[in-house]
Amino acid sequence: MDGLLTALDKVLAERRTASPDSSYVASLHAEGLNKILEKVGEEATEVILAAKDAAESGDADALVNEVADLWFHTMVMLGHLDLDHSAVLEVLDDRMGLSGLAEKAARKGHNAPSESA
Amino acid sequence: MDGLLTALDKVLAERRTASPDSSYVASLHAEGLNKILEKVGEEATEVILAAKDAAESGDADALVNEVADLWFHTMVMLGHLDLDHSAVLEVLDDRMGLSGLAEKAARKGHNAPSESA
Amino acid sequence: MDGLLTALDKVLAERRTASPDSSYVASLHAEGLNKILEKVGEEATEVILAAKDAAESGDADALVNEVADLWFHTMVMLGHLDLDHSAVLEVLDDRMGLSGLAEKAARKGHNAPSESA
Amino acid sequence: MDGLLTALDKVLAERRTASPDSSYVASLHAEGLNKILEKVGEEATEVILAAKDAAESGDADALVNEVADLWFHTMVMLGHLDLDHSAVLEVLDDRMGLSGLAEKAARKGHNAPSESA
Repeated sequence: MDGLLTALDKVLAERRTASPDSSYVASLHAEGLNKILEKVGEEATEVILAAKDAAESGDADALVNEVADLWFHTMVMLGHLDLDHSAVLEVLDDRMGLSGLAEKAARKGHNAPSESA
Repeated sequence: MDGLLTALDKVLAERRTASPDSSYVASLHAEGLNKILEKVGEEATEVILAAKDAAESGDADALVNEVADLWFHTMVMLGHLDLDHSAVLEVLDDRMGLSGLAEKAARKGHNAPSESA
Repeated sequence: MDGLLTALDKVLAERRTASPDSSYVASLHAEGLNKILEKVGEEATEVILAAKDAAESGDADALVNEVADLWFHTMVMLGHLDLDHSAVLEVLDDRMGLSGLAEKAARKGHNAPSESA
Repeated sequence: MDGLLTALDKVLAERRTASPDSSYVASLHAEGLNKILEKVGEEATEVILAAKDAAESGDADALVNEVADLWFHTMVMLGHLDLDHSAVLEVLDDRMGLSGLAEKAARKGHNAPSESA
């Protein structure tokens, strides 16, 4: 799955300049930051509802779709403010020491994090 | 940055079984799904506030940190329900045809998506 | 303004049994709890955005409308679960000692709360 | 229950100028609009979770408490921007024709709304 978020950021950047009539992403950018943030809030609510339902029913398909919607709109928001997902991953990396782990995993096939996060 | 979310999922899975006293992730799992979803809702609100402030001030550091918090807690929630981030990326891939793009990008160094998402 | 929430609860209860085609409230009940809670989440997000904009612009009209939307959908939700706004006011009353204050205000035209909430 | 929100607005206005050490309301105002809006977002999430749990369990006590928290913090937010609950009730009144209904109810003991909201 490596590189998918990078590919998604590339697609999102290209669509930002498309016609709002032909592209959902372009239409979000045309409507502006508040509209994009409304979608982030909506999708967060839908994630919460879908997680409660998944815990009850055991069926997680809707939940996974809602999380995809939430991440997608978060990335549109980052793009609207001229940011992308790599800045977010850097923060997670700094906090959790992930680069070291990923490297070690690539070398040894396993890892042992010592952080207490 | 490739592989960071995979490394993060591995760390989160290991900490799930740690002592709630020593690990924030373990303490979230111990408190249960509602607590984790409260954090998802809180972080979504903080993303929205930070995005408004970033648009006003031009300073995006806080926003990037809040998005990292939101994604982090979303991944804790996925783990709590025995899911991980790869299912989410698969949905995004299916919707956006990202695998093809990532592959084409790897071959040619560029791509031209035709989806109207 | 006294009695307006009681009047609203009465209207909402009547519309609950109307045709979903003719009544927005009936259509929400027909779609079910998740739909109503999605609206609560959406309106909460819109309140947050409108409050940030009101603080920036000094224009509070949109904010007041969004709070009205949030309270309205909260009351539809209460009705969907066979509750109404009076139970909420009772909680606020118990916490804040409002009945005593309201009574005292009615007698003396002023009051002096001693709670430290 | 008439007059309770008016009494609450009066209490909230008095506490706004109290010491942040002795009053929760004063501490919210001291921390500022973002802190108050974070609370609005948190309480909205808790309402959503409590509503799902109430629908499952049949026990609505927690839900009523969470709605009280949400309304309370919404009113603190209105106060922070020099507004109060009466502006919100006016909007609901205008939309739903509640004054006429409340008046008619006071005269006849019943009413028949014709709006299609």
